[in-house]
Amino acid sequence: MDDAFRFIRACRREPVDRVPVWLMRQAGRYLPEYRELRKEHSIIEICHSPELAARVTLQPLERFDLDAAILFADILLPLEGFGIDFEFASGEGPVIANPIRSPEDIDALQGFDPERKLGYVGDAVREIREALAGRVPLIGFAAAPFTLASYMVEGGSSRRYLYVKSLMYTHPQAWERLMRVVREVTRDYLAAQIEAGAQAVQLFDSWAGCLSPVDYRDFVLPHSSWVLEGLNAYGVPRIHFGTDTATLLGAMKEAGGEVIGVDWRIPIDQARRVIGPDFAVQGNLDPAALFAPKPALAARVNEILSAADAMRGFIFNLGHGVWPETPPDAVQTVVETVHAFQTPSDRRAGA
Amino acid sequence: MDDAFRFIRACRREPVDRVPVWLMRQAGRYLPEYRELRKEHSIIEICHSPELAARVTLQPLERFDLDAAILFADILLPLEGFGIDFEFASGEGPVIANPIRSPEDIDALQGFDPERKLGYVGDAVREIREALAGRVPLIGFAAAPFTLASYMVEGGSSRRYLYVKSLMYTHPQAWERLMRVVREVTRDYLAAQIEAGAQAVQLFDSWAGCLSPVDYRDFVLPHSSWVLEGLNAYGVPRIHFGTDTATLLGAMKEAGGEVIGVDWRIPIDQARRVIGPDFAVQGNLDPAALFAPKPALAARVNEILSAADAMRGFIFNLGHGVWPETPPDAVQTVVETVHAFQTPSDRRAGA
Repeated sequence: MDDAFRFIRACRREPVDRVPVWLMRQAGRYLPEYRELRKEHSIIEICHSPELAARVTLQPLERFDLDAAILFADILLPLEGFGIDFEFASGEGPVIANPIRSPEDIDALQGFDPERKLGYVGDAVREIREALAGRVPLIGFAAAPFTLASYMVEGGSSRRYLYVKSLMYTHPQAWERLMRVVREVTRDYLAAQIEAGAQAVQLFDSWAGCLSPVDYRDFVLPHSSWVLEGLNAYGVPRIHFGTDTATLLGAMKEAGGEVIGVDWRIPIDQARRVIGPDFAVQGNLDPAALFAPKPALAARVNEILSAADAMRGFIFNLGHGVWPETPPDAVQTVVETVHAFQTPSDRRAGA
Repeated sequence: MDDAFRFIRACRREPVDRVPVWLMRQAGRYLPEYRELRKEHSIIEICHSPELAARVTLQPLERFDLDAAILFADILLPLEGFGIDFEFASGEGPVIANPIRSPEDIDALQGFDPERKLGYVGDAVREIREALAGRVPLIGFAAAPFTLASYMVEGGSSRRYLYVKSLMYTHPQAWERLMRVVREVTRDYLAAQIEAGAQAVQLFDSWAGCLSPVDYRDFVLPHSSWVLEGLNAYGVPRIHFGTDTATLLGAMKEAGGEVIGVDWRIPIDQARRVIGPDFAVQGNLDPAALFAPKPALAARVNEILSAADAMRGFIFNLGHGVWPETPPDAVQTVVETVHAFQTPSDRRAGA
């Protein structure tokens, strides 16, 4: 087997020589070399420059033996194409100046061609693929329609999702129109990444966990499904991820993807039972665990690996992105511990 | 049966004439008469004045046919007893000036006698009981040890719980000491409320849902259990509530209480199956649903009632507190819809 592609093999539920591992937000704020670059360039400047985006994407791979690269980009880049202004308030996350709040705002919204307006992302993908030279596969990504629409409506991240839920409940037809515009851009954006060379894609429905299962089915599932279905013909693995989804997993797998990503709130063995044998699973260490002392951290990684039936159809990851305050040594501990893992039967066979 | 006490009967899983309903934060910010009072008095002033606290507690009962009153108090009042300063930053929730961050901070922490330092809460309970004159029962409450300790460590509400999880993982023995101090105050505080006249209590573990089930069992369950067990002899119903607890319900019922409160992320029938026949269940409408048009809101209430086997061992509530922006009319719709609910067998019997 091609060891460099154990991540892809795991997505396809083929046997692997060792458990593949990558971490959401592995490129970024917790790395001193990234923070160094940020002194010179804003996040948006890095995203807009294929050369800088490629450099940042590769930074963690120079430190750690990761099994996949993930494109450095911001999930809100499509907002530029919609003509929605946003900026990164320091320590606050993105803030949108002119959020979408009414049916009239939605009717005024125009779709766009991501290949034309976000072409720099495709350029970054090509540049990263060239730099990787087949070392590991490259994952592209986008926000799922609900998560992107939530940002557009809330104007930033939210604890309560008051505006987006009010809109859904009060103007269900306007919500449907909004989701149809957003889903088309999302599918085309992911398709463009795949055509530029992304070897897998992850659909981040990070905020879907604020919804009841009924609301997820009514207001979200058909649109995520439409995006994932629209990428089917490319044959690349699709990871469908959300946080706080313990009660949504049945609906999420129905929406599609080869791999379902889960957070730490659900024990990994329970997640695998719920998700069933037809899907690979990715997860699910609490990003907070990287603040534990090394032996406790390694023990937590091993607990997940032991419970996960990890040698087939499993990709080790966190349950959410790496936090900016994370010590890089902890990432090293995670990667080493995952790669050192052997199942009892491996050990007996001396594998 | 005593109709005024259908809430207590439901807690005890006795048959009721109609489904009892109350709403977390039913007294407070969404009511114009409360906002009027707030022009003259700060939140803390209201809490400190038994007369004002009683007046605010009763405000929603003058508008709506609710089946229980809940003491108006802030879950952070015990911080005063610990000598921890906090204030309500506008629109931000409570902010603590000197959070507990290190084992040394924990060692410096002294327990206290809630009856002496929070005696005004007992006075409020007595005043409310007198004003209620047996109309409906009064619920007392406190933050669960984890939720109170989270505030103490984080310094306010949090999305990530970085500091509290780091402390737990890095200094488990200091964490244990912190929880032992906090749990003793929590038990004594609830006991004092019961002795003053509270006819039920709710333990709010609002933030426990940020934890994996393993962490909940290791770091939280024994302390919540200690509090609940310590109130056993009073014989009043104990409601054990958290949000985001779909994967924690087994452990939460093990920790104790007669009633388990759940949020909207888990379908109510699934919650009742997981929690089993030995507990009553309280929940679980999304507070966002109160922003839906009246027919959609009523339909959502009825869906929960139909799925919940609601005529025994069920208390209708939201899955979290009423939001400040909520139209009072929506609360009226919820209460009326709950009380109008009849099961198919009730209708056939002409009940």
